[in-house]
Amino acid sequence: MEKNKKVNAAILIIGNEILSGRTQDTNTSTIAKWLNSIGVKVNEVRVIPDIESTIIETVNHLRKVNNYVFTTGGIGPTHDDITAQSISKAFNLEYKIHKGAFKILEAYYKAGEFNEGRQKMVWMPHEANLILNPTSGAPGFNVENVFCLPGVPSILKSMLGALKHKIVGGDPILSHTVSLKTVESEIANALTSVQNKNTDVEIGSYPFFQAGKLGVSIVIRSDEQQKIDKCTSEILEFVNQKKIEVVVR
Amino acid sequence: MEKNKKVNAAILIIGNEILSGRTQDTNTSTIAKWLNSIGVKVNEVRVIPDIESTIIETVNHLRKVNNYVFTTGGIGPTHDDITAQSISKAFNLEYKIHKGAFKILEAYYKAGEFNEGRQKMVWMPHEANLILNPTSGAPGFNVENVFCLPGVPSILKSMLGALKHKIVGGDPILSHTVSLKTVESEIANALTSVQNKNTDVEIGSYPFFQAGKLGVSIVIRSDEQQKIDKCTSEILEFVNQKKIEVVVR
Repeated sequence: MEKNKKVNAAILIIGNEILSGRTQDTNTSTIAKWLNSIGVKVNEVRVIPDIESTIIETVNHLRKVNNYVFTTGGIGPTHDDITAQSISKAFNLEYKIHKGAFKILEAYYKAGEFNEGRQKMVWMPHEANLILNPTSGAPGFNVENVFCLPGVPSILKSMLGALKHKIVGGDPILSHTVSLKTVESEIANALTSVQNKNTDVEIGSYPFFQAGKLGVSIVIRSDEQQKIDKCTSEILEFVNQKKIEVVVR
Repeated sequence: MEKNKKVNAAILIIGNEILSGRTQDTNTSTIAKWLNSIGVKVNEVRVIPDIESTIIETVNHLRKVNNYVFTTGGIGPTHDDITAQSISKAFNLEYKIHKGAFKILEAYYKAGEFNEGRQKMVWMPHEANLILNPTSGAPGFNVENVFCLPGVPSILKSMLGALKHKIVGGDPILSHTVSLKTVESEIANALTSVQNKNTDVEIGSYPFFQAGKLGVSIVIRSDEQQKIDKCTSEILEFVNQKKIEVVVR
């Protein structure tokens, strides 16, 4: 693989329950951390409702401008689970019974339990590739660069291991965090000048509250450790000059 | 106000820390619940990085296709806080010191503490309307239908009260939840037929785990209580027939 290759992804959360605020999405953070660890940077996240035309349009946009797209939600057995049929339409593929998925679920359920509701979960785009589900049987799938995962966080997490070999990442995205007992306004100018001297490093500043005290975490991100180290030492230089305490979080 | 008026919004989360998975967004859920309560439906959420051109492009798209846009993040004192200058460019407005915001922060901080870093927080689009911040002084702002709020959840929450009178909602979006001790596949077909008989009601089905047991919450949403009641009784009819236990969550 080429050095410093950038690989990016979009995450598409499908589900009215996130848009209504009823359910707190945690899948974004799970997928994003995992992608970072294999050298894929998340460019964008979108949350959209369970509306077929919206899913088709959004998937067709995101898959063209990102190396990978990861969708969550909408692959269960009920009427509001319309991800698989929407992806079929997005790719102009027939929506049909996937024989491999059928065999998996036939073996997973006891005799008589593989009912019509459960059989809906084996309907997928023609020749979709399965993503195995070690928790609850029903597989996810991918078509080209679009990977469809379930919405239930524990099930989704358990499927990432099997997915890893299908994703070709770039250089891992490294980061280092310096946490300080200060407020952002005390360090804003000094931090700006470090950022201006290191334009190819991403420096973020995030206030936090810990044990009732204000603090700031400075997060330095790059795919080159030496660039992170250089920024870190420039930051620690002004931190020492200003007699700001470094804290452990 | 016209009856059954639909009012919709997009939420735009601005911040690399959400895309990297480092920070778990909770503002979406906070804003979405609050908007629901005042009759505004969230159509879409996007999370984008701290990149000026991306912010401008996304804001200019979202503000045209939604009644309201709520942004979070990027209005603090550090170099990575670029929301205000990006919104200025999106609206072709001068980015300048807001006299009202200056007065508020001058009064908020002790003499000598209103330093250059903090003064960055009074730079806003020309003639922006302030959104008062009862927690930490620095106001948010809106230009036309775009409302810019901070990223820190506790501060954001404290600002919604002052914002309420600026938002004209439609009919409140009502919902009712029926939680059942069952699995989705057992009720999928019956629920589909209820949905097909009530196409203007939004029925969602969400599996949950409680005390180690599987369950399903059915969420019925509409702006008309009688439609919700009709769906609920149709659902309880098949629930009783199938001898499924209704649980309290």
